[in-house]
Amino acid sequence: MKVKSCFGPNFKEYEIGEIVFLGKKHPLKLSCGVKISNFPIAYQTYGTLNEDRSNAILICHALTGDQYVASTHPITQKNGWWDFMIGENKTIDTKKYFVICSNILGGCMGSFGPKTIDEKTSKPYGINFPVITIQDMVHAQNLLIEHFGIKKLHAVIGGSTGGMQVLAWSTLYPTKVKLLIPIATSYRHSPQNIAFHEVGRQAIMADSNWCEGDYIDQKKFPVRGLSLARMTAHITYLCESALQRKFGRDLNNKNSFSFNFDCEFQIENYLHHQGSRFVERFDPNSYLFITKAVDYFDLEGDYLGNLSNAFIEFSKNKEGKFCLISCLDDWLFPTQESKKITKALSSCSINTSSVVISSNNGHDSFLIENEMLKNTIHGFINQN
Amino acid sequence: MKVKSCFGPNFKEYEIGEIVFLGKKHPLKLSCGVKISNFPIAYQTYGTLNEDRSNAILICHALTGDQYVASTHPITQKNGWWDFMIGENKTIDTKKYFVICSNILGGCMGSFGPKTIDEKTSKPYGINFPVITIQDMVHAQNLLIEHFGIKKLHAVIGGSTGGMQVLAWSTLYPTKVKLLIPIATSYRHSPQNIAFHEVGRQAIMADSNWCEGDYIDQKKFPVRGLSLARMTAHITYLCESALQRKFGRDLNNKNSFSFNFDCEFQIENYLHHQGSRFVERFDPNSYLFITKAVDYFDLEGDYLGNLSNAFIEFSKNKEGKFCLISCLDDWLFPTQESKKITKALSSCSINTSSVVISSNNGHDSFLIENEMLKNTIHGFINQN
Repeated sequence: MKVKSCFGPNFKEYEIGEIVFLGKKHPLKLSCGVKISNFPIAYQTYGTLNEDRSNAILICHALTGDQYVASTHPITQKNGWWDFMIGENKTIDTKKYFVICSNILGGCMGSFGPKTIDEKTSKPYGINFPVITIQDMVHAQNLLIEHFGIKKLHAVIGGSTGGMQVLAWSTLYPTKVKLLIPIATSYRHSPQNIAFHEVGRQAIMADSNWCEGDYIDQKKFPVRGLSLARMTAHITYLCESALQRKFGRDLNNKNSFSFNFDCEFQIENYLHHQGSRFVERFDPNSYLFITKAVDYFDLEGDYLGNLSNAFIEFSKNKEGKFCLISCLDDWLFPTQESKKITKALSSCSINTSSVVISSNNGHDSFLIENEMLKNTIHGFINQN
Repeated sequence: MKVKSCFGPNFKEYEIGEIVFLGKKHPLKLSCGVKISNFPIAYQTYGTLNEDRSNAILICHALTGDQYVASTHPITQKNGWWDFMIGENKTIDTKKYFVICSNILGGCMGSFGPKTIDEKTSKPYGINFPVITIQDMVHAQNLLIEHFGIKKLHAVIGGSTGGMQVLAWSTLYPTKVKLLIPIATSYRHSPQNIAFHEVGRQAIMADSNWCEGDYIDQKKFPVRGLSLARMTAHITYLCESALQRKFGRDLNNKNSFSFNFDCEFQIENYLHHQGSRFVERFDPNSYLFITKAVDYFDLEGDYLGNLSNAFIEFSKNKEGKFCLISCLDDWLFPTQESKKITKALSSCSINTSSVVISSNNGHDSFLIENEMLKNTIHGFINQN
């Protein structure tokens, strides 16, 4: 089933790919206590599910990513965000594997989120959408997997917020997955990262066009607030050395200062560009709910400060293996946080490998084609 | 002469300390080309100028600091920002030295800035204030020094943006200062730091109460925008380990998540608190102009990529010495940037010492009492 959804300040309608309604038989109880049923999850698949349904790989997208992992994005018309990774004869070969990627719960690309119409009010849920967690997202993904009749996933792979989902898979459904690849992620969101998220949320909510979350109904759009949230976040996705290499202190086609408040340095231009592109494709309320879900993520806290305990159940899965990938110059999710996960897994005698990608694009390195990244994933998912 | 000035969203009036009008004989030509004359500079002094006027130390304040370096702040009623450093029998002993600290050009604590009334329009300059540079700030400080009849300063000391002013003193007035102590600063503002500043500026300008800079006349105040700018900046003033130590993932007097968008983590509370305190004492337009001045600072660029050339004139000052202080866990102005300055100074055979403070409060470490910091400054300014 396909649906249409509106995006950006002009509320332009786009057709969003496959949607399935889940939680029909049993409602899904969210972490906040709210029960949801018959809710949509949007997804894309690549390749063919084999007869014994053993070749499925679930890809978990990052904060503002979506299900268009290896196909043209309906709004931006760009290639999928991991197009270099997934496809026929690529790292994750769709002649061999059935790849599933769904838009996360709370997302704005067709899955149940703040833009979904609340039947009770005939208006979008907006700020009245239930506050969700990473675990809720994973429960929804599990229902999608059940919908496909898959008993066990060959692998779950994801970076950043997607990596948190991978970790949550191992704790919530320890027997339903063989191989796990969390990339550029952490076992908990750090206070510094919460701080950056809160700045982004406040930027959105401070915009008078946010209308207390009711902007769609009021035909307004918090362009500046959402753009500002994206600009702030984008600083954390790269790193000092990458910004220096890409932009330095270069000016926009000028040799001297303008002595005004126009966008004058190339780095400013870059941020403004990222901000204005983002508002065309993302929902401001979704941004609030998804960042909050990430802030709540704390596997260590969930297990009373002992991260190893999070993985005890998974350690009983004799086929279960982890491959942790981190990026050398990622300061959003530093390699030492990945190492802490590796240590916790090893202490549970879980088969774990750990790779640090010698990147030079900071956190975003996992989204950029890199031989070491591709070879690591290829080797891990194709082991006997 | 004393004046009154209004602050905060309620435009409450406060009396601001000493003010002097400078540039009476000769106008000061700013970097942007605009000439200013008979403009106010607000300052505080501590101690007594000796007969040969050789015991003066100029303190340069940081971005949002002010002249109340060692006396009660008229708005916040708090101790001066370097109260532990300056006073009788303190590190910078006011029984021995005459300490001067002036509010920077573009500031909002009485010096010529966007809040100053433009005689032509009888309204505050607002966004029509000339875009200034660190060098302009130093030229204004020099006029203040001349006003006191001081031929040569014993020392110029400052941290962060104040440290940039110290560096600019050595290039603009190489014969007028003996000892220079730039602290937690850099020879140029990095692209990452420009990015953070631009986010702050956009937050202010996106606030509809900013009124295109005309908020005072329109009796509005961009509370949320200015607060957001401060929140963003504050993340960069501390460091990951300090945030972890001070706040971790602790909640505000709660044991479980609220599942709403209230300020819920202590780190969020801290940022909101910093934001709301800041709007009471700072002018939004000043924030725009001062951050822009810092973004423009690039000693290396001014000398065509050769930082050593910046110090050639100073190297002829045989009394001239530098002491560079950086803070170990400062990621806003990392120690390697300070080391680069040390290298450039040494290549000019300038007597240079370099100290890294083993701090654990990130960039803000220089504002927190620290024996190593105090001993370094005391030893350096009291050498024979």
